[in-house]
Parts: sequence; C-alpha cells; structure tokens
Amino acid sequence: MKLGRLNHVGVATPSIEASVAFYRDMMGAEVIREPFDLPAQGVKVCFVDTPNAQIELIEPLGDASPIHTFLARNPGGGQHHLCYEVPDIDEARAWFEAKGVRVLGAPRIGAHGTMIFFLHPKDMGGVLTEIMETPRNQH
Amino acid sequence: MKLGRLNHVGVATPSIEASVAFYRDMMGAEVIREPFDLPAQGVKVCFVDTPNAQIELIEPLGDASPIHTFLARNPGGGQHHLCYEVPDIDEARAWFEAKGVRVLGAPRIGAHGTMIFFLHPKDMGGVLTEIMETPRNQH
Repeated sequence: MKLGRLNHVGVATPSIEASVAFYRDMMGAEVIREPFDLPAQGVKVCFVDTPNAQIELIEPLGDASPIHTFLARNPGGGQHHLCYEVPDIDEARAWFEAKGVRVLGAPRIGAHGTMIFFLHPKDMGGVLTEIMETPRNQH
Repeated sequence: MKLGRLNHVGVATPSIEASVAFYRDMMGAEVIREPFDLPAQGVKVCFVDTPNAQIELIEPLGDASPIHTFLARNPGGGQHHLCYEVPDIDEARAWFEAKGVRVLGAPRIGAHGTMIFFLHPKDMGGVLTEIMETPRNQH
C-alpha cells in the first residue's frame, strides 16, 4: 500500500445550490461541475475543482440519507470525509481488512464512476475515509 | 479572488507519534516531514505528503492550545481545517473582510513559513479555513 492522491475532500451541506454560490462568489472557484444524484449513497453530489484536488459537496438525498445525521450535528455543514485514490480497489480492501480496519459496506460505484468503499473513522484517526480506484482516463 | 491550491488538510490528533506510525504503516505514506513546534498557534505540527497535497497533523502544545477543545469533542482526533493558497495574503484578507467573513486574529507566520490567517467556520459553510500565502520557492 502506497499513499495515493487526495482525490477530494467531502464537505456536507444543507444546500448544494447555496454552497455552489459560496465557492463561486466567495472562494473564486472557476470550475464547478454539474450536480447529480447518487441514490445508492443517499446523496446529491457536486464537485468543485481546486488546481490540485476537488471539494465534493454532498447534500442529503432521500429520508434515509446518512448525511441527515451529520447535518443534525452540524447544521451549517462541514468536513465530512477524505478520499484517497488507489490503483486496485480489491487489493486495497484486502489490505485494510487484513489490518483489522472496518470496511463500511461492499465496494460500490462512486461519484467518479469507479469502485469505492468507506473505512470506519474510529479505525482511521477519527477521519471517515473513502478509498477509490483511480479513474483510468485521468492523471 | 481565485480559488487556489488546497495546500493541506489539517487533522488533529492526540499523538503525532501514533499518527505518523498510522500514516506510514497503514496508509503507506512515503514522505513524512520532521515534526516541529509552532508555539504561537499552540500546536505541534507534522506534514505528511500525498502526491498532490499534504496532511497537516496537529497535536496540542501547551495548556492553552485550541486543539484541546477539539480533542475533548473528538478524542480520537479528526478533520480540523482546510488550507488554501493565495498569491497575496493582504489582498485575501481585505477580500474576506469586505465580504463580512470573520477573520480570526491577525495574519501571522504559519507552518510553511509564510503568512496565514484563519476564517470563522460559521462564515465558511462549517469549515474552519486557513488561508496561506504560497511559498515563493514552491510550485
């Protein structure tokens, strides 16, 4: 295992629309991608590009969205997770399982169209961590 | 204002020593810088390099460290702040002040040796945000 690119920082928000205006007008973001729904994860997603990494804005989608709990504790939104890239998702999963880290659910298609899984924050220094396979057409 | 590089993600930890072992042995970090004290901020700091950004591990330094409050709420540590680069720290400060964002304290020397300031998370979508002037010898 070799530490990969920090693909994105997941930032929860009660309103992607308001956050997009914030990143555009306050932070000066020049590339903001089209928002889309990711029903399997219970989130609406919008990527904001910085020159070297992305901010992934996530808003609750549906009543069962895991983001509702986060926003109940942090009504204005806040940092939700970090996502690192790996070359092979199955190898990465086997690595973390062998180390006794709790993998949250089966690997599934993530917001970039490649396989991802999440790791329990209590096993990761308090950081909810997403591991994603590097998109083959990038970098 | 133009959104700059995500220089680092600040991650609070009760023990930089334990976190360094975690990033080296669990996450496969290959470049971990030498830890150092930043008494003006009340933190001990250690940078972990990913291919495109850094993780800034921060541990409380002294009884008045602001990190004690964070660790009281998150005993295992967790995501603390995001840091973006700007070309001119004074321009950036004027920009945010003109927008009514609360600047936390005067600009001061940060962990990379250039001027930094912090912005109130309640004005920044719940994200404690550090703004730092890009080091002149980098990028």
